[in-house]
Amino acid sequence: MKQSPSAFAAEHCFRTLQDSITRELERSDGRNSFVEELWELAPAAEGNSRAGGGRTRILEGGAVYEKAGVNFSAVHSDLSPRLAERLGAVPQTVYATGISLVLHPRSPMVPTVHMNLRYLELENGEAWFGGGTDLTPYYLFREDAVHFHTALRSLCDQFDDSWYPRFKRQCDEYFYLPHRAEARGIGGIFFDNCRDSLENFFRFVRLCGERFPGIYLPIVERRKADAWGEREKRWQEIRRGRYVEFNLLHDRGTLFGLETGGRTASILMSLPPAARWQYQDPFPEGDRERELLEVLRHPKEWA
Amino acid sequence: MKQSPSAFAAEHCFRTLQDSITRELERSDGRNSFVEELWELAPAAEGNSRAGGGRTRILEGGAVYEKAGVNFSAVHSDLSPRLAERLGAVPQTVYATGISLVLHPRSPMVPTVHMNLRYLELENGEAWFGGGTDLTPYYLFREDAVHFHTALRSLCDQFDDSWYPRFKRQCDEYFYLPHRAEARGIGGIFFDNCRDSLENFFRFVRLCGERFPGIYLPIVERRKADAWGEREKRWQEIRRGRYVEFNLLHDRGTLFGLETGGRTASILMSLPPAARWQYQDPFPEGDRERELLEVLRHPKEWA
Repeated sequence: MKQSPSAFAAEHCFRTLQDSITRELERSDGRNSFVEELWELAPAAEGNSRAGGGRTRILEGGAVYEKAGVNFSAVHSDLSPRLAERLGAVPQTVYATGISLVLHPRSPMVPTVHMNLRYLELENGEAWFGGGTDLTPYYLFREDAVHFHTALRSLCDQFDDSWYPRFKRQCDEYFYLPHRAEARGIGGIFFDNCRDSLENFFRFVRLCGERFPGIYLPIVERRKADAWGEREKRWQEIRRGRYVEFNLLHDRGTLFGLETGGRTASILMSLPPAARWQYQDPFPEGDRERELLEVLRHPKEWA
Repeated sequence: MKQSPSAFAAEHCFRTLQDSITRELERSDGRNSFVEELWELAPAAEGNSRAGGGRTRILEGGAVYEKAGVNFSAVHSDLSPRLAERLGAVPQTVYATGISLVLHPRSPMVPTVHMNLRYLELENGEAWFGGGTDLTPYYLFREDAVHFHTALRSLCDQFDDSWYPRFKRQCDEYFYLPHRAEARGIGGIFFDNCRDSLENFFRFVRLCGERFPGIYLPIVERRKADAWGEREKRWQEIRRGRYVEFNLLHDRGTLFGLETGGRTASILMSLPPAARWQYQDPFPEGDRERELLEVLRHPKEWA
């Protein structure tokens, strides 16, 4: 893989973030460690339009995390004509490197969180950053929602006052299930195609990664000892069904990865450990479940 | 809804089949009954490109069936330009009526089964039948696979000797997960766009529906008392994750239904009651699990 200086810097940054984040998460779990798998894609010759590799790290069956994945990858793909059109570019090879993280805690009181930070570069030299982070609670704690969004706003505000409102709105628009008329969770920030000042966005993306543990882990600490039972677990599994629906029906990264012959096990690490689909839903009857649905149906301003 | 005589006949046939099949399934379950929900789509005015309704019947928490759905529907949809192109037609309204059935038994020894029979008619008068049935076992019993396929072959052979080999191959091609390099199950028959002799295909589709209980229920009877434990249930849930992946990533009916504003609860009744995704799969180690994977990776001739 030949690399531009900024591709090299981005790749290095994402590797370093993977190291620091998995270290913090192991400390937070207190029981289990991440298992690492290094992988390389087979050459494009075998009908595979991708080449490259990655470092997948998974923690399963932990004390706090039922399933946690923190993946790093750096991959060259052939840009399909359809995707090229969407990106406003001619079909060509795209280099993508990024870190992708999904944490599914055991307790229904602790929200699932997702973060993705990525750098893309075309053959013609065009390059940009993208990414975001969003929170998917099973029970709504307003204090947590306010904390998460306030921290993201203050992070964005260091760069540009217009970013948080824009990235927050884009997040609400992106993580949406039209067939359920529900948001996936309480949102966060989502940004893509950030090219204006590459250096500025590089600093922003790095700061997102560095701040992540300090933003999410206090929520884990606050909620992890809360009591829950079979009812709450069942509700969590039903909501996790929605998470599956979003990722398999709508998530661009998942669909693009699978379509272009990416590594299935690493891409689908985002899926929850267990999910449930019932036709006759015993819920929205409970007040606490209804409270969550209310904010999923009508996204709010939290910060 | 204005209807042609054949649309009327097809609709009547599918309603009648829903009645007879749910009756047989209730007898087979022995504990629970189907709950019926009549529904009507909101008028197209609300951004919905569909109008029509249906009769959804669901049995949950049964003795034999953990979740069983047998749906009838009759719907007018606007054919999107993209779908019109695929069907080789100009964009216009399409009338579709059909019966769709997915049975998820509780025991991992009893296979999941799916059947869909449908009739489509365009504004310009073109009309055709489609459908199929396929079996998704969690453990392989060769006797059951041979029975299922032999019964389907004999059914097809009553019409045309060339149908079974063709429809069997189409089934293997359709129910395939490229990202897993696995078939969804051991196949069955799949046919679409059958227009040559509409009357002949009507007789065929009706016979598929009438014969269904006599083909599937003997398998249920043979397996339902077999012993199983936690290990087999976990394997079933992992395999059900694949079922979810197929339906949300690939199944045309599901995607078309959701995209065009179909009734979400009825469309997604096909999803299993519970599914599991593990990164570190404890399986293919067991001989019996490996035996299933072997035939999913290399589809066989059973009849």
